[in-house]
Parts: sequence; structure tokens; C-alpha cells
Amino acid sequence: MATRMEHQQPNPEKIFDTLNAHQQTAALKAGIELDLFTAISEGADTAAALASHCRASERGVRTLADYLTILGFLTKQIQKYALTPDSATFLNRRSPAYIGSIAGFLTAPEIYDRFKDLTAVVRKGGSLQDDRGTSEANNPIWIEFARSMGAMQRPVAEDIAKVVNADAGEKWKVLDIAAGHGAYGVTIAKHNPNAEIFAVDWPSVLEVAKENARAAKVEARYHTIPGNAFEVDFGTGHNLVLVTGFLHHFDPPTIEKLLRKICATLAPGGRVVTVEFVPNEDRVTPATAAAFSLVMLASTRAGDSYPMSEYERMFRNAGFSSNELKPTPGPQSLIISRK
Amino acid sequence: MATRMEHQQPNPEKIFDTLNAHQQTAALKAGIELDLFTAISEGADTAAALASHCRASERGVRTLADYLTILGFLTKQIQKYALTPDSATFLNRRSPAYIGSIAGFLTAPEIYDRFKDLTAVVRKGGSLQDDRGTSEANNPIWIEFARSMGAMQRPVAEDIAKVVNADAGEKWKVLDIAAGHGAYGVTIAKHNPNAEIFAVDWPSVLEVAKENARAAKVEARYHTIPGNAFEVDFGTGHNLVLVTGFLHHFDPPTIEKLLRKICATLAPGGRVVTVEFVPNEDRVTPATAAAFSLVMLASTRAGDSYPMSEYERMFRNAGFSSNELKPTPGPQSLIISRK
Repeated sequence: MATRMEHQQPNPEKIFDTLNAHQQTAALKAGIELDLFTAISEGADTAAALASHCRASERGVRTLADYLTILGFLTKQIQKYALTPDSATFLNRRSPAYIGSIAGFLTAPEIYDRFKDLTAVVRKGGSLQDDRGTSEANNPIWIEFARSMGAMQRPVAEDIAKVVNADAGEKWKVLDIAAGHGAYGVTIAKHNPNAEIFAVDWPSVLEVAKENARAAKVEARYHTIPGNAFEVDFGTGHNLVLVTGFLHHFDPPTIEKLLRKICATLAPGGRVVTVEFVPNEDRVTPATAAAFSLVMLASTRAGDSYPMSEYERMFRNAGFSSNELKPTPGPQSLIISRK
Repeated sequence: MATRMEHQQPNPEKIFDTLNAHQQTAALKAGIELDLFTAISEGADTAAALASHCRASERGVRTLADYLTILGFLTKQIQKYALTPDSATFLNRRSPAYIGSIAGFLTAPEIYDRFKDLTAVVRKGGSLQDDRGTSEANNPIWIEFARSMGAMQRPVAEDIAKVVNADAGEKWKVLDIAAGHGAYGVTIAKHNPNAEIFAVDWPSVLEVAKENARAAKVEARYHTIPGNAFEVDFGTGHNLVLVTGFLHHFDPPTIEKLLRKICATLAPGGRVVTVEFVPNEDRVTPATAAAFSLVMLASTRAGDSYPMSEYERMFRNAGFSSNELKPTPGPQSLIISRK
């Protein structure tokens, strides 16, 4: 637990807490689904007020709010709950940075249930469901991803727009591979009125990206290339290629194949921006980026969260001469690559 | 994650990690099931050696061992894994304090799945499965409990034996209510050769307790009272009554009813030792004891982890005049009560 005391003597508490850690997932999901954080921001700060505001039992919300306090998502003073900076920013539905929707993807049965028998996954060395793997055509989980995860990616997209200086307004062709929610390409288009976006993803997923492009009023410059990224024609002369949260699904030979294809589409001086979980070479720090490796073990045949030395090798093998690693405000990193 | 850096700015990482926390449960369970910790203690300290020792894939064990390192159950130096003091003590099967078996109970579907729709639980204010509740007769989950959880309770049982000075060897009648694995009564019997134990639980559960009494060579002094604790005849003249991990399942009126029945069975000078999660009055510290309230919300109609002020009131209403709270080496506390 977040506030657990550290003991000098060996203590079974951390083992007990970790075997119960699934309750943390359930509790935060319930808090988001009941819109508890928004209710508190609107002044419903006691168990009784929350029960009435969230149309739930008082026993239930009191226990849930106490538990969320233990986890550090609320504070509690004399029976009154308040939001923390994190929950006020990201879990209050009225906040522009609200990301509560990510619970929908992260706890969807298609994702959650992959960890049901992790022992069998570890024995096998990969996803137990190869035939219905996450990179299959039109898998509905990617529609859920597109609808849920854009919120969390927008700050990273803003970061990229700054790093590539999109505001300079140069005439750009931008290829957005595995566009998903579209947040990356759309953000570039918003910052650069002279950018034309070419978004690659499954047709059903591109519908979500197009909705988001319309909402951002950039649909006239938003083009789609529906299909498998390994098979479709990317076109040529791209000044910027976005490869966001995609490479981790594959093994190095497959990634190199894609990177070679990308390299061939670049305009002179063009750049590739990759968004990835990139742990340190020890593969155990920083925690969130390194831990993502387990998600790839459980959901893919051979994906991983690769350290920079491995990305460096893959990009060089594929024809890139320079790669620069940059942190983002979240757990992911950017890799900026040039031919 | 255990090693997550604390950020000054609001950061979505903790929300992301918490929604993924169920992976921590899955990973520790897999490590225990694959006996990874025992393998490391026997010198299989690289991914390749672990794969061969645990009959699993190298990709799988490397990713799992890295993840367990992130959680703080292993250390990693130059591709070699080692146990931490906690995992060496509690997760190495050769250690006398091994408690890996608790994964069986804590992740059993009957327990785990109660958190599947915690939103509905919070709305309702209690378990969604009242008819198959945890206090039902002969519920097989209590056989799993008896087989799995004894290991974690033994240090607490040893602590009780010390607190009540069982080694003094006085002639005692000891009533062990909801005996489960039997660890509490059996430990008293081992320390006090003049103690006769009377264990109350469902018949199928008492079979496990009797096995443990035989293994500890105290079966001649181990008697059973099969049935519902609220209905069976406890007998009289008990010098010590053990109420371990039982009261939390009920609401205060039900607890008081049981305590009144217990009070009536005590010999002059007799004591009741209650083992419970007893959070502070704020109900949010210490973390593990306070968090247990969520388990009771999800699995009972009206159970809770009550703070001491509430236990104090219940015991006094039931006829007890003194109650003393004592910590144990784990997350539970003892309450020592006298008429």
C-alpha cells in the first residue's frame, strides 16, 4: 500500500498487499465509474453527501473513499474528503486534463483477462491467445483504445508538437502510423496549419480518429490509409513520421522491417518521432516503463519494452543515422530519428 | 509502482499504475506458482537458469523476474537476480516461515471475483452474493482458507502464546472460535501441555484443523465443536477464548450477540483474545488494516474493519470490563478482554 511503513524485520505485509493489489485496480475503476472525484470537486465531501450525489450506499462510498485515501488519491480530515493534485487534475470530469476514460481500455476484459493465468503465459513465453492477438485486423479492443486512451496521450502529443517545432508552420506531409485516437496527428495539424496528415490504422479505428479530427476542425487536412501498417502504401516525401505506442508489439526483426519501410518514405531532412516505454538498460527502472514489458509478455508473441540500446541498433540496421532519446511528462519517452 | 519517483507536478503515472495494479497480483502469484523464489535461493539466478529450473520460457521468466524486481521482491545486478529479506523469509519454500500458500486463498475466484464489479458493490453497499456469502455453512472457500492461510497466522499465534503466557502450563480450557487451520489453538496446546482445546468451525474445515493438531502431536487434547458459532454449545469454564479473524464479517449487533455468548462461557479470570484488523480512528491508517474494510464491503452484508473505539463499545455492551489493544508482528492487532 502507498502509505505502508517500511519495516526493518522481514514482514509478510507487502506480500499480502501485493496479492491483494487487484483491489486497487477495482477501487480506482469504481471511483471513476461512480464519478466520485467530480462529486468531491463539487462539494460532496462527506460519505453521506457522496452517497446521495453518486447514487450509491453510504457504507459503500465511505469504504471506497477511505480506500482511495489510503492509496493517495484523496485526503481525509475529520470525516471530510478532498482531492489531491493528481485526482483534481486527472480524475475530475470538469478538468480539461481528465483521463478517467483510460480505465475503460486498461480494465477491458480483453486486456485484464490476459493476466488471469500469468503462470501459463510465463511457461509459454507469450500471449496464450495468438490467434486473437492484439495486432489482428479490426480487433475491437483498438476501438476501445482509440476511445479511451487519447486523453492520456494528448500531453505527449503537445510535447511532440513543441519538440518538432510544429508552430513554425512549414509545409509538411505527416505520416501517423497506428494513429488510434488520432491525438498525435491531430495535434500536429492544430499547431501547423500547413501540415497534411496521413493516418494509418484499421478502418474501424480510423473512424474514431476522423471524429477527433473533425472535432479539432482539421478534417480537411486529415487523410486516412486504412489497413495493416506492414502492407499498405505509405506514399513518399513525409517530413514527419509518428510511430506512437506501436513498436512494442513486435520482435526486433519485425520492427526493423517496418523501420526500413518508414525510412524509404522520408523526405530529405525528414524525422521519425517514436513514442515508447523505454526502460534503462537494467530493464527494471524507471518502474512504469520497465513494468510495461509484462503487458507485452501477456499480450503479444514477442513484443517488449526495449531499452534504448536495442532501439538504437534496430534504427541503425534500418538505415537511420541518428537517434535522440527525450523524456516526456509521462512514463513514455520520445525517440527522434533521422536518416 | 514501488519505485515510482514522486513528481512535483500532477502526473498521470500513479493513476496508470493503479489501474494496472492487478498485474502485481498476477505476477506475485505466478512467481509463487513457478517457485521462482526457491529456484533463486538454490542458485538459479539468471533468466536462462531460471527458465530451465522452473520449466518455463526464458522470455517469460526474464520478464517476470524483472517485474518482481520492480515490485521489490527481488534485486538484480548485472543480469543476476537475488532474493530480498522478505522473499528469502516468506517466499522460499525451504524457509520455515514460507507463506506462499496464501496466494491460493487470496486469489481464489470466490475472493478475487468479488471485486469484478466493485461499482455495483458500492452502489448496493455490500456483497453482490448474499445467498452464497462467506459465512455460509461448509462454504468450500473456508477449506481453502484453512489450507492456505495457516502459514501467515502462525507468527501471530506464537505472539498470543507469549502474551497469555501459555508456557506457564496452567490447567486451561481453551475455546477456539472459527478455528480454521487450527493454528491458534494448536499453538497454545504446543506451549501449554495442560491446555485442552475446543475448536469451533464447520465440520469440513475442522478436518483440516485436526490434521494440523495431529501433525503438532496435540490431537489427544484437541476437541471439536462442529457447527455455526452462533448456534453451537460452547460449554463453560473457558480460561481462554480465541476469536481470530472472525468478528469482521458481521455488524455490531451481531458481534455483540456473539460476545455476550462468549462472555457467559468464561471461567473466573478468563480472557478473550481477539485477532483483528484494527485501523486507527481515522479509518485510513495503518494502510493494510484500514484497507481490509474494502474486502469486507465486497464480501459481506455488513462486516467491516472496526477501529478500537467501536470494538471497545461492543465488548463493553457484551459484559466485558477491560480491553487492551496490542500490535502483532503483522498487520493485525490483538484485543485482550476480561469480564
